[in-house]
Amino acid sequence: MFWFKVCPLSFEIREKDLLARIGKLKTKSGTVETPLLFPVVNPVVQSISSRRIMEEFGFEALITNAYILRQRFQGQPAQEGLHRFLGFNGTIMTDSGAYQTLVYGNIQTSPEEIIQYQEQIDTDIATILDIPTGWDVTEKHAAETVKETLKRAKSLFERKARDDILWVGPVQGGRYLNLVIKSAKETGKLPFQIHALGSPTEVMERYRFDVLVDMIMAAKMNLPIDRPLHLFGAGHPFMFALAVSLGCDLFDSAAYALYAREGRYMTENGTYRLNELDYFPCACPKCTKTAPKRVLELPQREVETFLAEHNLYVSGAEIKRVKQAIKDGRLWEHLETRAHTHPALFQALKRLAKYQNYIEKHDPVTKNSGLFFYDSTSLIRPEVLHYQKNLKKRYNPPREARILLLVSQTQTRPFHNSKDYKSIAKTLRRQFESQANRIHVCFCAAPFGVIPFELDEVYPLSQHETVVPPDKETMEYVANQTLDYINRSDYEGVVLLSSEGWQNTLQDKAKQACRKRGIPFKYLSFDGKLAKTMLIRLTKTLQKMLSE
Amino acid sequence: MFWFKVCPLSFEIREKDLLARIGKLKTKSGTVETPLLFPVVNPVVQSISSRRIMEEFGFEALITNAYILRQRFQGQPAQEGLHRFLGFNGTIMTDSGAYQTLVYGNIQTSPEEIIQYQEQIDTDIATILDIPTGWDVTEKHAAETVKETLKRAKSLFERKARDDILWVGPVQGGRYLNLVIKSAKETGKLPFQIHALGSPTEVMERYRFDVLVDMIMAAKMNLPIDRPLHLFGAGHPFMFALAVSLGCDLFDSAAYALYAREGRYMTENGTYRLNELDYFPCACPKCTKTAPKRVLELPQREVETFLAEHNLYVSGAEIKRVKQAIKDGRLWEHLETRAHTHPALFQALKRLAKYQNYIEKHDPVTKNSGLFFYDSTSLIRPEVLHYQKNLKKRYNPPREARILLLVSQTQTRPFHNSKDYKSIAKTLRRQFESQANRIHVCFCAAPFGVIPFELDEVYPLSQHETVVPPDKETMEYVANQTLDYINRSDYEGVVLLSSEGWQNTLQDKAKQACRKRGIPFKYLSFDGKLAKTMLIRLTKTLQKMLSE
Repeated sequence: MFWFKVCPLSFEIREKDLLARIGKLKTKSGTVETPLLFPVVNPVVQSISSRRIMEEFGFEALITNAYILRQRFQGQPAQEGLHRFLGFNGTIMTDSGAYQTLVYGNIQTSPEEIIQYQEQIDTDIATILDIPTGWDVTEKHAAETVKETLKRAKSLFERKARDDILWVGPVQGGRYLNLVIKSAKETGKLPFQIHALGSPTEVMERYRFDVLVDMIMAAKMNLPIDRPLHLFGAGHPFMFALAVSLGCDLFDSAAYALYAREGRYMTENGTYRLNELDYFPCACPKCTKTAPKRVLELPQREVETFLAEHNLYVSGAEIKRVKQAIKDGRLWEHLETRAHTHPALFQALKRLAKYQNYIEKHDPVTKNSGLFFYDSTSLIRPEVLHYQKNLKKRYNPPREARILLLVSQTQTRPFHNSKDYKSIAKTLRRQFESQANRIHVCFCAAPFGVIPFELDEVYPLSQHETVVPPDKETMEYVANQTLDYINRSDYEGVVLLSSEGWQNTLQDKAKQACRKRGIPFKYLSFDGKLAKTMLIRLTKTLQKMLSE
Repeated sequence: MFWFKVCPLSFEIREKDLLARIGKLKTKSGTVETPLLFPVVNPVVQSISSRRIMEEFGFEALITNAYILRQRFQGQPAQEGLHRFLGFNGTIMTDSGAYQTLVYGNIQTSPEEIIQYQEQIDTDIATILDIPTGWDVTEKHAAETVKETLKRAKSLFERKARDDILWVGPVQGGRYLNLVIKSAKETGKLPFQIHALGSPTEVMERYRFDVLVDMIMAAKMNLPIDRPLHLFGAGHPFMFALAVSLGCDLFDSAAYALYAREGRYMTENGTYRLNELDYFPCACPKCTKTAPKRVLELPQREVETFLAEHNLYVSGAEIKRVKQAIKDGRLWEHLETRAHTHPALFQALKRLAKYQNYIEKHDPVTKNSGLFFYDSTSLIRPEVLHYQKNLKKRYNPPREARILLLVSQTQTRPFHNSKDYKSIAKTLRRQFESQANRIHVCFCAAPFGVIPFELDEVYPLSQHETVVPPDKETMEYVANQTLDYINRSDYEGVVLLSSEGWQNTLQDKAKQACRKRGIPFKYLSFDGKLAKTMLIRLTKTLQKMLSE
């Protein structure tokens, strides 16, 4: 009898990147790793058996619907035990019928019955009967769904009889972010082991991934961060990277089967209709063996199974891609790739700027890989903000520094290994000897802004790949960083030595800062190679400034 | 005896997108579809049999090395026939040992022997013994490789004895673009059925995909466009989209096997070392059945076979993705996705701006899908330039139009279906009655610029998805397009009605154009909704301008 065995409930975070984490979630049927996708198994109609979902497709967990089980099979799953009933010895999660409430209005059960039923059938992860807010509703209605869900959440802890089942506390509120915040705060106070964000399906169907970002962040920032967060009904692989980056740990996919029923073929980049395809853009075991034309000739039932299996393969593969990206510290890179599969996802990525501070606070300080920097979208990266904050709060130029010599970006990294820097350093040593340390060399580079030469090997200031020239927004960011840096410094003069291509913005902002501080500014521009004549001009300029 | 059967040689183009095409290439062993990847089969060491390459992996063609065959097996392949010798009844291409020349210096054969040998073994597609230019060479050396390659190319037509083999005329010159151009022009005059661009391998190893773009375009723009172009040694799936977009039709991959030997795992987004992987980011039949840890426990030979098979699966899938994208008219979209897997590829994508005119000339005017527009990189798209050219050359505003009313972008498309436009149109009809047609409404929208309302349903002016707000470069493009449009028009006044968010650039440029033309300009800005008061202000402004 393992029914009342108390399971040490815990979620252990192993790896982090952005707000994503790889974690271990202990359930009474085994420990599963997150981010985790639960394929939805419909006990009534199911084209892929639970056993195959584990053995062939490699899923450790599945989700099924307690309400449907109860309506169709009554006591049978309880008698056999859900695991034997479904033929699945991994972790089983049950949903409560809340989605059916959203679709069909009232359903024929009560919150209390659903609690009791989930305990009886011996599920591993159970969900209270919450009230989904939906999309096209008034704020008043939304507030009522939040209130009633919360009431039901509280009553769980008076009613539940077992301690070895993990309970999910759903957050509602829809697109009314203040309600989502309230719902998250209140639900988070209750001793749930897992939380879930309800009803994002309609937001996703409308491709409003920017709104989804707001909804997830409203929940995430107000829930206990050490509990896993499930995103209900988010089963399309093309948005896993986004949701995981925002700290969603658990997903369920009915989509793989529902899409199949409608002849829709998922990819990690979007969706096709099967009859639109001439080639299968996929390496999965189903697609490599045949072609769209041949599949379309099969009986409808086989077409559906083919699609469901393909959809499940690509969903599983994308979860693994996301996990590997987390391990590599490359989730942002993966996110940028996925954001460039649909403008709505790119729009959502840009929305992350709003949460930059929060993400930066939780993102690991060092990672295993260098950064890929494409354009100003990458300025949202926590590494960029992290450096900006550190430079502001913790950095002081060398004491003896009197003149700031700003050198614009070179292609070599670390910058102090560049030919240009080496000839500048040599000139300074030769011409200024013991006075050379009064001249402080800093680089101006995308995306980080001002980089003092003595820091340029610190991660990730040299560990990144960029595109030249940067886009305008990036140039402006660098220029503004430079302005701030000069403004808060004690330098007595600034020389900007810039190769062409770095636009006027940098010069304008540096000049503006110097004017404000009442110190001299000199701009020296060179084209391509740093010639000897320029080094002579530089020497004279610095000599003049130092003697003033 | 099919040896001397004359095969109707032809390359038939079926579908086009950018410079890419889906084509049918007839060879004496069957017709193959391009873009086509030839897996390299090394007759000496081969982990995947030729038979499996066709039956399990679905490749219709392979490439092997005539020089190596001759060195190791002498007359045997000729006696058996290459197809029986390799156990492959699809199309076989042979390389000539030119790569071996590059790697080992001289090789033990002559151009004449290699021609004769390829005819004897009954290959389907044969390559002359060209001299690869390589990367780190002087211009003088590069010029010699071009000259000698050309000499050998010419002599083929005096020496070859069969007419049923397709011959490949290689283009050399390396990174010396003037030499590539010369090589392409001269080789293109000879009656080759296929051309190839030589020695891009080192450019790719250095991640100089921007230089590769220049090299491919130098060849492409100077070769007969109706002959297929092979890109030698380009076997990594993460750059297929780029090369195909530039008009490369044929690829060979030794990489799938060479990478495997070095423990490297390919993906369509880049490369991993097997021992760096915790998860297989892939849905292929190999990866879905196991995990990196378990593969690493296998004997070295099996690890290599595992990797080779995986690499071949992902390479094949990416070719199919690219083909599907061509069919969908979405190759640019696919290219942008891939460009966001490495900054070096993004840099290469930006280099396409240099060839925008050529690409626009060859790109189909209508496509099956709407456009995804992310940012100013998408301004390179042929559709954008195409519209700009057409508006300039072919469009005239309605005769009776006296005042231009510019309305900034709305989210609704076609724009004339937007609420804002509808209330403007209603106001104009009511207030100006028969004079309303003297006011010409145009929209200002990213990425296309000025869109006269009567054109806004023309493809692709309404068939695109964008991100709001656009980036600065895009706003500047729209503003400059507006300036040009006003400059070349006969309007007697311009009113700009703009919702906020559309930055000052548009206003500045419109004003600048009006000042130049000496006509009145008025700017009306509104925030969010177009209120009634604004419609009244608009009416007064227009009345005043019409009465002046």
